[in-house]
Amino acid sequence: QYSSENRLVTMIPGDGIGPEISVAVKQIFSAAGVPIEWEDVDVTPVKGPDGLFRLPPKIFESMARSKVGLKGPLATPIGKGHQSLNLALRKAFSLYANVRPCKSIEGYETPYKNVDIVTIRENTEGEYSGIEHVIVDGVVQSIKLITENASMRVAEYAFKYARDNQRSTVTAVHKANIMRMSDGLFLKCCREVAAKNKDIKFSEMYLDTVCLNLVQDPGNFDVLVMPNLYGDILSDLCAGLIGGLGVTPSGNIGEEGALFESVHGTAPDIAGQNKANPTALLLSAVMMLRYMELNSFADRIENAAFSVIREGQHLTGDLGGQSTCSQFTDEICRKVEAS
Amino acid sequence: QYSSENRLVTMIPGDGIGPEISVAVKQIFSAAGVPIEWEDVDVTPVKGPDGLFRLPPKIFESMARSKVGLKGPLATPIGKGHQSLNLALRKAFSLYANVRPCKSIEGYETPYKNVDIVTIRENTEGEYSGIEHVIVDGVVQSIKLITENASMRVAEYAFKYARDNQRSTVTAVHKANIMRMSDGLFLKCCREVAAKNKDIKFSEMYLDTVCLNLVQDPGNFDVLVMPNLYGDILSDLCAGLIGGLGVTPSGNIGEEGALFESVHGTAPDIAGQNKANPTALLLSAVMMLRYMELNSFADRIENAAFSVIREGQHLTGDLGGQSTCSQFTDEICRKVEAS
Ligand SMILES: CC(C)[C@H](C(=O)O)[C@@H](O)C(=O)O
Ligand SMILES: CC(C)[C@H](C(=O)O)[C@@H](O)C(=O)O
Repeated sequence: QYSSENRLVTMIPGDGIGPEISVAVKQIFSAAGVPIEWEDVDVTPVKGPDGLFRLPPKIFESMARSKVGLKGPLATPIGKGHQSLNLALRKAFSLYANVRPCKSIEGYETPYKNVDIVTIRENTEGEYSGIEHVIVDGVVQSIKLITENASMRVAEYAFKYARDNQRSTVTAVHKANIMRMSDGLFLKCCREVAAKNKDIKFSEMYLDTVCLNLVQDPGNFDVLVMPNLYGDILSDLCAGLIGGLGVTPSGNIGEEGALFESVHGTAPDIAGQNKANPTALLLSAVMMLRYMELNSFADRIENAAFSVIREGQHLTGDLGGQSTCSQFTDEICRKVEAS
Repeated sequence: QYSSENRLVTMIPGDGIGPEISVAVKQIFSAAGVPIEWEDVDVTPVKGPDGLFRLPPKIFESMARSKVGLKGPLATPIGKGHQSLNLALRKAFSLYANVRPCKSIEGYETPYKNVDIVTIRENTEGEYSGIEHVIVDGVVQSIKLITENASMRVAEYAFKYARDNQRSTVTAVHKANIMRMSDGLFLKCCREVAAKNKDIKFSEMYLDTVCLNLVQDPGNFDVLVMPNLYGDILSDLCAGLIGGLGVTPSGNIGEEGALFESVHGTAPDIAGQNKANPTALLLSAVMMLRYMELNSFADRIENAAFSVIREGQHLTGDLGGQSTCSQFTDEICRKVEAS
């Protein structure tokens, strides 16, 4: 269990632009004087004696001590049978809830204003069970697994998140009209938890209806909780509403600790050229600071980043500017220091 | 198999606003002099000798003769175990592909311009298999079933649709990074069909990426083909991009015939008040006319409807106007007659 006495953070810089944006985050944290210590870890899979690749022991050792990690983008190893490293990490540390706050950013042009949605995704089962069979040639089944334990756990987290973050409504997203038993169980758990958390409003909505309404009127949504695959979809959709994965933070919450990460790609085309945008990783690091109960540092850094974006003078290419990653970072540092 | 000699159309007016909008469509068809004969059928389930409810025999008899149907919204019967009537119809007539053209409508304000996407949804299997089990208390599995036959059939339809409608690209939407076997099989079928249809470009994209890109830049998409649940989601999302289910047509294509339908709800709050918007049913009827090779009637009716919307003087409430369903309908009739 993470304790707020703990000041060690495991840093997984990642691949492609990962190292550059990790350096940017560290620089901004230094400027703010955040009282933490970083431990860099490389998670490139290592070949075991059985010939299979797995996460290196170092990441387990480091996370066992820190309980908190920050992670840049990872390239999935090429070749058949390699699982996504992102999934391997979620699994290794039982990170059961993926949380993505998607809030419109002032100064960043998108077709929508006033988006302020948090998606909370069950992160361990559902369509991601990995159980699949060929029944006969040309007939395949994949198993969507829904358990009461995992559904209760993520529903409870959603209501706790809503309360801790002054949110008014949790909406369960489902297709229980089609998957009556599996989504039905998920929904039943959400209803049970809702009944014990009457201070937070509860509603239920079909996934397809949510998608339609999100593109028509995203301002109507608050906290959404849902099974794994639906969360994969809606978290990306909501990120799209506010400007994409380059500006959207993400956190994976476990019972023992948590891993915060930017969910964009490794952008190999611009890697090493000082062009990358560190915003998603920085805002993920801000979520991490709140998790670590370092709220005043979180607020200062977040305000600095948003004011640099709002002012629009020092933006990286993907944010519509012409500045380098370091110029953008330096400007955030200046604001942090002045605050 | 439908033959273009056939001029009988089965009409399922449906519930709520269904009867009103069906009358509107018939009136516009009369004004255009469309050479078809309507046969109205009520599909309210009837109780069999075994105590179970099923579709009435009349719908099977009528569709056996007509091979083509037009359907308004249906209310799902209340009570445990009642399947959606929409699903029952898809199943009863093996309607294997759901097709939804989503094209921005001039004069109808949405955050997007230049949307012109067609979603083609596998309509018979996937997450809609209906196979679910309780493994032990609190542990449920639902089975996603993907077959080579159904995947080939819908992929072939997608490429044929693209060719027949002068479309340049078919994109297969999948999560084969997660469901390697099931979505993997679907994708393999799409690739095989693509290899035999080199005049149409082919691409592949992850479902989550499609969602993100759709809300950021829908103009980049053309024809999308995908398994059942993904189609449920994306067809609604794309409808949202052009103004919602009230203006989006839909067709279910089978090997023997086809059923066209408006996919919005029954709107019981405004039913019987002459306030309903018949656009979705009318545009579905236009799709039907093209299926029946009555293209010149289709074009005339479609142009008339779009010009009434563009001019904006005779719109129903949901389209932003103050006219009744009949005033909107009459205006379309006038344009049709003048054309
Ligand atoms: C990379 C991929 C396996 C992953 C997922 O499908 O969960 C990603 O889309 C995400 O949302 O983190
Ligand atoms: C009504 C419901 C069962 C149906 C579905 O899930 O397919 C609907 O959403 C649709 O898209 O036609």
